[in-house]
Amino acid sequence: MSAADLSDDRRYVLTLGCPDKPGIIAGITSFIAEFGGSIVEAGYHSDTDSGWFFTRQAIKASTVPFDLAELRDRFGGVAADLGPETEWDVLDSGEKRRIVLLVSKDGHCLHDLLGRATSGELPATIEAVIGNHPDLAAMTAAHGIEFHHIDFPKDPAERGPAFEQVRKLVDAHDPHAVVLARFMQVLPAELCEHWAGKAINIHHSFLPSFVGARPYHQAFARGVKLIGATCHYVTAELDAGPIIEQDVSRIDHADDVRDMVRQGRDIERVVLARGLRWHLEGRVLVHGRRTVVFS
Amino acid sequence: MSAADLSDDRRYVLTLGCPDKPGIIAGITSFIAEFGGSIVEAGYHSDTDSGWFFTRQAIKASTVPFDLAELRDRFGGVAADLGPETEWDVLDSGEKRRIVLLVSKDGHCLHDLLGRATSGELPATIEAVIGNHPDLAAMTAAHGIEFHHIDFPKDPAERGPAFEQVRKLVDAHDPHAVVLARFMQVLPAELCEHWAGKAINIHHSFLPSFVGARPYHQAFARGVKLIGATCHYVTAELDAGPIIEQDVSRIDHADDVRDMVRQGRDIERVVLARGLRWHLEGRVLVHGRRTVVFS
Amino acid sequence: MSAADLSDDRRYVLTLGCPDKPGIIAGITSFIAEFGGSIVEAGYHSDTDSGWFFTRQAIKASTVPFDLAELRDRFGGVAADLGPETEWDVLDSGEKRRIVLLVSKDGHCLHDLLGRATSGELPATIEAVIGNHPDLAAMTAAHGIEFHHIDFPKDPAERGPAFEQVRKLVDAHDPHAVVLARFMQVLPAELCEHWAGKAINIHHSFLPSFVGARPYHQAFARGVKLIGATCHYVTAELDAGPIIEQDVSRIDHADDVRDMVRQGRDIERVVLARGLRWHLEGRVLVHGRRTVVFS
Amino acid sequence: MSAADLSDDRRYVLTLGCPDKPGIIAGITSFIAEFGGSIVEAGYHSDTDSGWFFTRQAIKASTVPFDLAELRDRFGGVAADLGPETEWDVLDSGEKRRIVLLVSKDGHCLHDLLGRATSGELPATIEAVIGNHPDLAAMTAAHGIEFHHIDFPKDPAERGPAFEQVRKLVDAHDPHAVVLARFMQVLPAELCEHWAGKAINIHHSFLPSFVGARPYHQAFARGVKLIGATCHYVTAELDAGPIIEQDVSRIDHADDVRDMVRQGRDIERVVLARGLRWHLEGRVLVHGRRTVVFS
Repeated sequence: MSAADLSDDRRYVLTLGCPDKPGIIAGITSFIAEFGGSIVEAGYHSDTDSGWFFTRQAIKASTVPFDLAELRDRFGGVAADLGPETEWDVLDSGEKRRIVLLVSKDGHCLHDLLGRATSGELPATIEAVIGNHPDLAAMTAAHGIEFHHIDFPKDPAERGPAFEQVRKLVDAHDPHAVVLARFMQVLPAELCEHWAGKAINIHHSFLPSFVGARPYHQAFARGVKLIGATCHYVTAELDAGPIIEQDVSRIDHADDVRDMVRQGRDIERVVLARGLRWHLEGRVLVHGRRTVVFS
Repeated sequence: MSAADLSDDRRYVLTLGCPDKPGIIAGITSFIAEFGGSIVEAGYHSDTDSGWFFTRQAIKASTVPFDLAELRDRFGGVAADLGPETEWDVLDSGEKRRIVLLVSKDGHCLHDLLGRATSGELPATIEAVIGNHPDLAAMTAAHGIEFHHIDFPKDPAERGPAFEQVRKLVDAHDPHAVVLARFMQVLPAELCEHWAGKAINIHHSFLPSFVGARPYHQAFARGVKLIGATCHYVTAELDAGPIIEQDVSRIDHADDVRDMVRQGRDIERVVLARGLRWHLEGRVLVHGRRTVVFS
Repeated sequence: MSAADLSDDRRYVLTLGCPDKPGIIAGITSFIAEFGGSIVEAGYHSDTDSGWFFTRQAIKASTVPFDLAELRDRFGGVAADLGPETEWDVLDSGEKRRIVLLVSKDGHCLHDLLGRATSGELPATIEAVIGNHPDLAAMTAAHGIEFHHIDFPKDPAERGPAFEQVRKLVDAHDPHAVVLARFMQVLPAELCEHWAGKAINIHHSFLPSFVGARPYHQAFARGVKLIGATCHYVTAELDAGPIIEQDVSRIDHADDVRDMVRQGRDIERVVLARGLRWHLEGRVLVHGRRTVVFS
Repeated sequence: MSAADLSDDRRYVLTLGCPDKPGIIAGITSFIAEFGGSIVEAGYHSDTDSGWFFTRQAIKASTVPFDLAELRDRFGGVAADLGPETEWDVLDSGEKRRIVLLVSKDGHCLHDLLGRATSGELPATIEAVIGNHPDLAAMTAAHGIEFHHIDFPKDPAERGPAFEQVRKLVDAHDPHAVVLARFMQVLPAELCEHWAGKAINIHHSFLPSFVGARPYHQAFARGVKLIGATCHYVTAELDAGPIIEQDVSRIDHADDVRDMVRQGRDIERVVLARGLRWHLEGRVLVHGRRTVVFS
């Protein structure tokens, strides 16, 4: 691909959610048509249950005759006409996203994301990796990324200072996503609130089944015939945040917990990578406990 | 659901394909907004490969202040501005679609479609069933539907008159779809042309693998690990028409051809039902050998 | 297939579960080899978690030089040597199984099973259909099968006599399976106990998610990205019996509850048909809350 | 897991294929029972099409009262009684397998296998990586594994010496598998023969669809609704060797070739890792063009 092609890949991505009424699409697309913008991808969803309207539109940046700031400014005017509850954003695909990963001992999700970041598949740079165990320091360092080991006390009641350290390290990078890549620690409610809409967890079950600890053991005990993984936004209620993506894999009676753990890693990796990419590309709009994903 | 709700379910469905350029979405949605139309579902696709634009929009009929004829008339004007290659249509979901089925001896797809028609899930009435064998006459009659047995000569070169009879019986119902529900006969090129865009076949393989006869035997011989089914428009080239839907099912070494046939029936049923529903609801737009499916 | 081929399809199916120890397979297969029995399918599972051993073996009936009664008698001797906890059975695939269906208003599972019974795919005859609503009487009658409508009082506390009627009607057929094909009534504990190991339910969710009523509404509210269905043995604890089979289907934000219901029917049908066939062919061995399925 | 548990995980794995006849299972399992061997996993398959019998049995090594050499020797005697066509093997799970990878420019499969080797999930050590381009040298070196760049001439007719170098480098490690991890070069027939049964390729399509070059481009042009990947043994006929594993992933009209390439990588990785693990654990038995996989 030539440099010219590459710059032609740059997109301005408008996302918007507001109470539904006739004429919204016409309003937004007329706004874009007026300056000759070329829409490359357009997603619309009208949710009859909540009465809410959602859209995401990717415009070829080369067809926008002004800069991002002015596009934001002008689109803000359009959004304002749609009422005070309207939520909107404009992303520039040319601006690389930043993410920070929280990990523990299991390295399969970290290794996978490092590979995707290296190959350019993940539209983000991994700014830092923070572990409550030192095990994954070398894997991180081999990719030239800073690793911070923060020791967590055994007693959950005493973990406040450790989480405070995590918060500072994360916030220093002002990341677009804080990824709990098998972090195995429950975030305190205030951190969930602080990172609302950008803390993303991968849970190793098909939620809402098997919330909490040792989901593969729970799955084995229940005798299910499929295991799964769930990528979701973190909220104060454990494993109950809005779901971005899920997938499953078939098992049978011959698979014990260790087989499930191994097979589950393949789902976890892919579900997290998919959900994270969608988040970074502005494809996920949250409304209450549900998500609209323009994948 | 009350009668009022039901009438509120009625949709006018606009579909359109044309060469892509900026402003098309704005044009169409402004046209709808002007008369206060409420868009319930909106699908857009801009195909960078072919430079073609596709859209499907479902408008709540109760928000359209004129009748279908006038909507067609007005929308025709919008479409005309998009150039001579533009193809468009307006469907009324309140008008039940008509289909005719061509069958042979295997009744699983016929039985399935009869069930879906009875329950109201299939948005169509089955007008007639035509078989080149009499085996499925009773199953058809039990649902109060006319069945025609047409004897096909062994020699393919002598089948012309039989196909001519089929053509007449089918055309008498002016159907929205002619469904080859495991018909097992190759349509002559002139019938493919005559029913272009409405003859739909279910092929019992994951095309383009295993074109032609006895695909499960071919699949067994090749030792594949998944079998599949393909719902596609019929064209003069055997099993090569635009694909509407496909799905697969896992098999293993313990499955012989009979197991594949049995397991395959479950995929065939679902893939055909899904593809046929999408066709009837105006969700499938064909461009060359590819389809856009706003499912 | 000729009559000779057909008779060659007849199998004696041995199933056995017992505490594991070395030499069990050798003991059973030597017993079969001694009389020259030809094993067509052999499944073994050694469960390290429970220390239990399971096997299923299908022997070509034409290679067994004595009748079923004597085979049972002799195999009983082999089983007796494996300890008092051993559970075993011998099925004759030549003996058609009998099933009774319990239904309510939704006919998709009934229609599907009627089709499979007609085509010979389901290795059973449907002896009777019992509904707590009269809606499915005609569909049943069209297949020449008796239908019984039993009125259930609104007050759950007063349903005892109705369930007693159901019990009598079912038991009159001494069925190999009592299938709750979307019956929508909770069986009383004593009936669960009475039909233990042969009452089979299809639940319209991926259990253990969304136990109880209106699972698709629960799934919509939670915002899951896949819906599922579960075929399981009925036990006194609601939707908590041993799982025989499960499957899922992808949905997205554009699917409302009605879409889920429609799409879910396709999973329910297939999951129930698959689980029921495995049960009837002696492929399902239950141990505690888990099943071993030699599919 | 304690050291004792670990050693208890060691298995001797017997595999055998021979013409089917009554009594084979009894013979093999009696042989194992005689020395008190504890069978942990047992797979049997009787192929009615080819008249061939296949088995794989994993015996707890701690229950075998003699060493591997003697077990081989004794089992060889059992196998000899089953006729001259019998093929058999005994693996020791305690002996780590060795593999060599052939790569080109795309690193996603290499990165994935490096991760699995590091975590211990892949039951093998990667001895060397050979590339016809230097691009993946650094990724390999970061894991402390030797990388060899061998330049391939543009003219296929002149590639003989390069392949000879590859052969020498590979054979120096006497590997259990030669993995073409997106190697993008067609092996000459003599190398296919030389490495028969241990050269494993990952092809980026659902074979037999889209043999040869640029399968995603072929898939896009054909308009399929699922893309796939196939892990197979390499034979002289291009992409036609016995299939070990396949899987697919759903796409739609909005996915262009670049999307397919990205999404396809996720299937390729998993299908290759799965197929390779099965090969290394002696789970794959080849018969003609088909495989029996005791997964």
